[in-house]
Amino acid sequence: MRADRNSERTLLLFAGRAHPDLAGKVAAELGARLVPTQARDFANGEIYVRYEESVRGADCFVIQSHTAPINTWIMEQLIMIDALKRASARSITVVAPFYGYSRQDKKHKGREPISARLLADLVATAGADRIITVDLHTDQIAGFFDGPMDHLFALPTLADHIAAGTDHSRLTVVSPDAGRVRVADRWCDRLGTPLAIVHKKRDKDVAHQVSVHEVVGEVEGRVCVLVDDMVDTAGTICAAADALYDGGAEDVIVAATHGILSGPAVDRLKNSRVSRFVFTDTLPTAAATGLDKVQVLSIAPVIAHAIREIFENGSVTSLLDDL
Amino acid sequence: MRADRNSERTLLLFAGRAHPDLAGKVAAELGARLVPTQARDFANGEIYVRYEESVRGADCFVIQSHTAPINTWIMEQLIMIDALKRASARSITVVAPFYGYSRQDKKHKGREPISARLLADLVATAGADRIITVDLHTDQIAGFFDGPMDHLFALPTLADHIAAGTDHSRLTVVSPDAGRVRVADRWCDRLGTPLAIVHKKRDKDVAHQVSVHEVVGEVEGRVCVLVDDMVDTAGTICAAADALYDGGAEDVIVAATHGILSGPAVDRLKNSRVSRFVFTDTLPTAAATGLDKVQVLSIAPVIAHAIREIFENGSVTSLLDDL
Amino acid sequence: MRADRNSERTLLLFAGRAHPDLAGKVAAELGARLVPTQARDFANGEIYVRYEESVRGADCFVIQSHTAPINTWIMEQLIMIDALKRASARSITVVAPFYGYSRQDKKHKGREPISARLLADLVATAGADRIITVDLHTDQIAGFFDGPMDHLFALPTLADHIAAGTDHSRLTVVSPDAGRVRVADRWCDRLGTPLAIVHKKRDKDVAHQVSVHEVVGEVEGRVCVLVDDMVDTAGTICAAADALYDGGAEDVIVAATHGILSGPAVDRLKNSRVSRFVFTDTLPTAAATGLDKVQVLSIAPVIAHAIREIFENGSVTSLLDDL
Amino acid sequence: MRADRNSERTLLLFAGRAHPDLAGKVAAELGARLVPTQARDFANGEIYVRYEESVRGADCFVIQSHTAPINTWIMEQLIMIDALKRASARSITVVAPFYGYSRQDKKHKGREPISARLLADLVATAGADRIITVDLHTDQIAGFFDGPMDHLFALPTLADHIAAGTDHSRLTVVSPDAGRVRVADRWCDRLGTPLAIVHKKRDKDVAHQVSVHEVVGEVEGRVCVLVDDMVDTAGTICAAADALYDGGAEDVIVAATHGILSGPAVDRLKNSRVSRFVFTDTLPTAAATGLDKVQVLSIAPVIAHAIREIFENGSVTSLLDDL
Amino acid sequence: MRADRNSERTLLLFAGRAHPDLAGKVAAELGARLVPTQARDFANGEIYVRYEESVRGADCFVIQSHTAPINTWIMEQLIMIDALKRASARSITVVAPFYGYSRQDKKHKGREPISARLLADLVATAGADRIITVDLHTDQIAGFFDGPMDHLFALPTLADHIAAGTDHSRLTVVSPDAGRVRVADRWCDRLGTPLAIVHKKRDKDVAHQVSVHEVVGEVEGRVCVLVDDMVDTAGTICAAADALYDGGAEDVIVAATHGILSGPAVDRLKNSRVSRFVFTDTLPTAAATGLDKVQVLSIAPVIAHAIREIFENGSVTSLLDDL
Amino acid sequence: MRADRNSERTLLLFAGRAHPDLAGKVAAELGARLVPTQARDFANGEIYVRYEESVRGADCFVIQSHTAPINTWIMEQLIMIDALKRASARSITVVAPFYGYSRQDKKHKGREPISARLLADLVATAGADRIITVDLHTDQIAGFFDGPMDHLFALPTLADHIAAGTDHSRLTVVSPDAGRVRVADRWCDRLGTPLAIVHKKRDKDVAHQVSVHEVVGEVEGRVCVLVDDMVDTAGTICAAADALYDGGAEDVIVAATHGILSGPAVDRLKNSRVSRFVFTDTLPTAAATGLDKVQVLSIAPVIAHAIREIFENGSVTSLLDDL
Repeated sequence: MRADRNSERTLLLFAGRAHPDLAGKVAAELGARLVPTQARDFANGEIYVRYEESVRGADCFVIQSHTAPINTWIMEQLIMIDALKRASARSITVVAPFYGYSRQDKKHKGREPISARLLADLVATAGADRIITVDLHTDQIAGFFDGPMDHLFALPTLADHIAAGTDHSRLTVVSPDAGRVRVADRWCDRLGTPLAIVHKKRDKDVAHQVSVHEVVGEVEGRVCVLVDDMVDTAGTICAAADALYDGGAEDVIVAATHGILSGPAVDRLKNSRVSRFVFTDTLPTAAATGLDKVQVLSIAPVIAHAIREIFENGSVTSLLDDL
Repeated sequence: MRADRNSERTLLLFAGRAHPDLAGKVAAELGARLVPTQARDFANGEIYVRYEESVRGADCFVIQSHTAPINTWIMEQLIMIDALKRASARSITVVAPFYGYSRQDKKHKGREPISARLLADLVATAGADRIITVDLHTDQIAGFFDGPMDHLFALPTLADHIAAGTDHSRLTVVSPDAGRVRVADRWCDRLGTPLAIVHKKRDKDVAHQVSVHEVVGEVEGRVCVLVDDMVDTAGTICAAADALYDGGAEDVIVAATHGILSGPAVDRLKNSRVSRFVFTDTLPTAAATGLDKVQVLSIAPVIAHAIREIFENGSVTSLLDDL
Repeated sequence: MRADRNSERTLLLFAGRAHPDLAGKVAAELGARLVPTQARDFANGEIYVRYEESVRGADCFVIQSHTAPINTWIMEQLIMIDALKRASARSITVVAPFYGYSRQDKKHKGREPISARLLADLVATAGADRIITVDLHTDQIAGFFDGPMDHLFALPTLADHIAAGTDHSRLTVVSPDAGRVRVADRWCDRLGTPLAIVHKKRDKDVAHQVSVHEVVGEVEGRVCVLVDDMVDTAGTICAAADALYDGGAEDVIVAATHGILSGPAVDRLKNSRVSRFVFTDTLPTAAATGLDKVQVLSIAPVIAHAIREIFENGSVTSLLDDL
Repeated sequence: MRADRNSERTLLLFAGRAHPDLAGKVAAELGARLVPTQARDFANGEIYVRYEESVRGADCFVIQSHTAPINTWIMEQLIMIDALKRASARSITVVAPFYGYSRQDKKHKGREPISARLLADLVATAGADRIITVDLHTDQIAGFFDGPMDHLFALPTLADHIAAGTDHSRLTVVSPDAGRVRVADRWCDRLGTPLAIVHKKRDKDVAHQVSVHEVVGEVEGRVCVLVDDMVDTAGTICAAADALYDGGAEDVIVAATHGILSGPAVDRLKNSRVSRFVFTDTLPTAAATGLDKVQVLSIAPVIAHAIREIFENGSVTSLLDDL
Repeated sequence: MRADRNSERTLLLFAGRAHPDLAGKVAAELGARLVPTQARDFANGEIYVRYEESVRGADCFVIQSHTAPINTWIMEQLIMIDALKRASARSITVVAPFYGYSRQDKKHKGREPISARLLADLVATAGADRIITVDLHTDQIAGFFDGPMDHLFALPTLADHIAAGTDHSRLTVVSPDAGRVRVADRWCDRLGTPLAIVHKKRDKDVAHQVSVHEVVGEVEGRVCVLVDDMVDTAGTICAAADALYDGGAEDVIVAATHGILSGPAVDRLKNSRVSRFVFTDTLPTAAATGLDKVQVLSIAPVIAHAIREIFENGSVTSLLDDL
Repeated sequence: MRADRNSERTLLLFAGRAHPDLAGKVAAELGARLVPTQARDFANGEIYVRYEESVRGADCFVIQSHTAPINTWIMEQLIMIDALKRASARSITVVAPFYGYSRQDKKHKGREPISARLLADLVATAGADRIITVDLHTDQIAGFFDGPMDHLFALPTLADHIAAGTDHSRLTVVSPDAGRVRVADRWCDRLGTPLAIVHKKRDKDVAHQVSVHEVVGEVEGRVCVLVDDMVDTAGTICAAADALYDGGAEDVIVAATHGILSGPAVDRLKNSRVSRFVFTDTLPTAAATGLDKVQVLSIAPVIAHAIREIFENGSVTSLLDDL
């Protein structure tokens, strides 16, 4: 029995409830629609999911932002994967624009978990074949998954936006601490700017206490672009900005992929001397601040492009070669 | 190189943050203490866990109640297991007095997940060797785990408590719907009482709509003990109680292992004609209602007994033989 | 190197030796043929299997009824799967119209196996990707398999057959014991009939001894349809039928998906006052009784339909929506 | 919480129903008893198993002979393993004195299974940690199991028995075909005898047809010991014996570990000119022939020795060094 | 979203650095080209691999000869597989014309590894789905891999070559020791020649010492074809040839699939009275000897044929039926 | 059957052939001896391993340095693990003082492998339960292994040695590039010294070309300690030292855990203005340079300490708390 007409493949998009706006934009970019899905909480918080159309034999992409309440949305994504697996999906790709628990990618002390590895294992156990994500906290996390992980970059999106509105020759890219210099390096390579670093010096007399934010490199009179992969409570980044202004910077712009913006972050942004904060919409939080100085660029075209290339067996790497 | 003095084994107890009261009682029953553990939420909701003492080579028991916010506590338990695995625990036993997602133990319709199986797989992936739980929604769930699951019963605790304060000859055990008759059967066997059933009849004209709660069996003038494994929103159980009073029952007592008591449950309990609700403390919610007619019996002795027998290679089955 | 002409897929059907009649009917429904297969027993009972045609790259469906000698046929199916895996089948689907060991889906007492889970694991280990089965003893068994299980239902086939030959208004659907009420419920929903239950009361003085079969609900003057998923030794069902006749039923018809009919079953059927027994041919045994009052409906169209939808990536769920 | 008194370990012996006599002898050798076990067939052939004592924390050895009905006994052993795993056994060792399906250790043609590998996988999936077996058909089968397999040899038992009753200088060890020469070689090394081979010549005109059994080596006037790992239908071995007598052998003795003796074997043994057949009791069949010329030596001491060494962490290899 | 144009599949060939000549020939046979690949050693010997073109969605075949330095080339192949897996290859097939460590397919003594099984597991862990190999040392090795292994044979290539240049009626096929008789048997079947065996007799007084090479069968005046799967140090084969010449053979030709030719092999070949050595190019070593009497036949057509059939879902078995 | 006398555990040490000197020192520290092991290469490079004593039930530690020829020694360690697994070791711990392929811990470009993850998977597949290693290139690599990895640090050994011979107040710790600042930070914290960085500036006009090594921080007149985890070809470190001298440093000392010293390294060390190079003996290469200015400290006490604590269930973390 031959099945000629079945040899064509089908791409289906699914969205968890964490960040419907981004999922909608990805679908729009692809000219596709999201598969109608029931997803709701039972009274005790257990999540219920059901797809309203057949997924049999389809290449399925499950978009979920790991935003607060983060454990709920991770569990929802796992449950969505399980339902796809049991409904005979041909392949299941997790799309996690922000990969949760990425900062717990190592044991900082003994008897800690490595939660970023745990997350990769949970996703695989539920039934996922592949992960698409944007700007991992460290590149090594891709090695936590035993399969293909397509690691996308927001740098072109962010850097081109900033470059478009400023005089190149006046820009200096700044890393907010010694651990993020590699990210700043990539920015320098793309924009052709000098590099500076804000270095946290610890007080010898008080353990783990940062006493001074020291600026390394020339920032006086410069337009400083402070870059990072994520801004969570915004303490580090705002202190770094202060150090830059104190060092004579003319202007400070912050650019980061993931605007987590938890706890005191919004107040800190509001009160900061930073003139602009530029984030992408990997998380819904940045758009929700309502602050004029916060700009949000959509990562949806980048994700949509990757999904299309994956589905059509094109090269995701080559797309990003001009990074 | 011999290690004679190491041939003795060590039992360590750990508690997640969901229900510290129960964990404390289990520890007290065992004459043990809980291993000091840092567990906190980062600003974006990611959970951080670290043990403050060595766990190397120990038999570890991780107690967590799957209460609201249920996904958070499940994830915390998974992270705790991962940390134990990486810290060289000899064995890891999950103690989940209430097993989350147990009602999603099958596909009720196509394209649903089987979340109760997923949970068993997640726990195994994180590194657990064994599960201890109380009164699973269906016994088949034990088959979802590829290893030993010690399934404990609250029936002796609940039934003896109720029997102690009432005239046996006046009791009738009642199942609140057709699906829970097996549980009621076990009560009848233990208490030697007659059985009745409240049967939900569906309206032919309205899909999935229950029109009538019909009482099957003799309840007039009887003290009815409505039994179930869990009471969540309390809708079914209170409707069943009304049907029993309408059928002439003199008194209605509700006994259930898991007092989930979500959403409108507390109001329903307060307003119900039921004279007493008896739960165990597998979840912290029943004790938190503050209602006089709610009685909470501790399951801690049953759990502690099982932990001790497991650690000392005794028989959990034989302990429960008089069930 | 492109392979355009290979993009079409091929479906291949295989049959073990347990129930060639059913396999033949499934093939006929599909307009396909069974792949020629050598299968024989060596002198010491070891089974030998070899396919006489290439299976490389094909979607393979292996039909085997778990009938007596049940362990032999299960092992033959495992061996057939292994041979397909090693011969580069693209996918392997087990078709087990009756899922063996389904009654051992939980530990009834301590230190028992959960053989229904074991079977799911054996099938996966041998190399199967998916299972198709009919009317599992409990729905939870689908959760024993870590992949898609297409669970088909004989209810439409059986119920429509019975409805066709009888006056609807006179029918009452009866569950033979408390544990099967859910099945009876589905019949009531489809046929719009009242429900009754035969309840086994245990003698308090003799452990595990059923003393009385009590009829709950109105059966006097009714045509009772006793429904169950399987009839094995026929003891329970015949006792239930007696109770119904004793309760004044005008006629009793038995309808069950799986006519296992082991040991004394055929004699009991012959001697029973039941007027008709209606089974499907998931097992070869019902057709072999030679009793006029035993009717056998073929499940082949239901299985064939599912195979076709799976192969063509249609929806099995939607087919069964009118259940 | 310390558990000093639990640091001692416990060995438990279990027997399937295939060959209780051998299991009893092994237990007697060990001064142990078999754990009381319920094992019975349901009416439809499904096997039920339950242990009547706790197995928690014990090192468990499950003895089962893969004799006819071979698939039933294999499945029983798998089910016994599953029950041990779920009852918290510390370790599970399969004792399979004859390893079933060992002749299907490779594909003889395309599209065959490799059932001997499948069996190793099934046993591991059910939960076994280790296998003890005697005289595998080929040594490579040990590599099919991903864990320790203790491979015991009957050669010392058989060879010493034969040597004891015969004049060494008159013995010649004979391989019944070219494929078993390695086994005969080991006999020669132990007994210091010459070697001969019976070589099957195929008829060029008839495919797969053996036309002549040609004797290679000196056998005239010798006492020939024909050796093999197993005798199944006894066709090959009896034909080889005839060739030896035709070649002038004074006497022919057959020695083989596994007396499968299926189908026509007993008749062939009875009618053969072979003076003695010596087997071990890895299978119950040899003892059941009732033929005077069939001698059965017990393998129980060898198995018991291995179990004791394994339990006490001694060396099984060194025990067998004098092989 | 449909992807009609993607339903065609793509075959990609990759070559490790061990034997580029063979890989080139396979590619030429297929009319394909090798995917450009960077592969180099870092200063400390760590291997670096990167593909210069997208492999997403392709059926990938990775050709590597397990020649010296064998561990380097095995590791390179594992690393190549890992890179393909992470780059989203659709399927990955290992092509190992000579399967390394195949002689360690069993424990010859206690406490040895089974390295041939280990190799199969490493390959699977890295991400391979299938193995293609030529003339395994024992057929059982195919059972070490839990998936399809296409086992090809050089016999037709070698035998036809030898038959073409010689008078059939004068040929005798000879096995160089008792363990390789099965291989010689297949040659006899194909060429219709008589069989002889060189049998190593061990000296009773010196353990493991072979004292005499005894020729079994008629070789006087014959053209002897000594056949084996591999020639490593050439000690055995040259001693066997001497025995044949001593027994009156007119000419001795050696035919073997794998010309490993390690250590003293080239000198032995040069000094041997053997007139011709015929090998295939599964390894690069035979072609590198520069000896006139060494002939090398290419196995590339056989491998290419298998790759094409696998890719196009044809039958590899049927191709080799005339073996 | 009780086994009281077996409750004591046994530790066994094994060494591959890569670095016998270190293994001997570890054994001496533990007061243990290395288990006699046959390990040799066959003529074609295949490795053969056999243990000469029973390992049954023992806790086994397999020490192997991943030095050149690195793939050979990795494969030897895998084969040693396989042999232990099959010989019934109770637990198997890999001791890899230098973890091979640690620099390939991420994809630097598309279509690369993640070989450091692959290595963790290979080790687990072979049968290892745990890994002990020293100073991983990045901490995230510990997350590549699904089990406990004890990550030891050479910092106390190295730093105390350097501190002992120098005036603290004159020291400055220097990172040789931006990516190793975290390591330098830890040195500063331990020694209480200032920090400096050598920053590689890339030439905008030539891709990936480093044009200038710029010193950030005060080094004039200081004794600079250049620190890194490894020194391979020594290009980066020697260039950094030059930059420091050019910047006015009085003296430059290099301290690194792993002295790989491949290719041109020894010449570079000899010709460098660096006054002292301090390495540990995780690899045999540093001790083999024969240069006076190269000092080698033994890591054996640190490894031995960890092995003892692991075996005796002590805390490895607490030992290293003063790091």
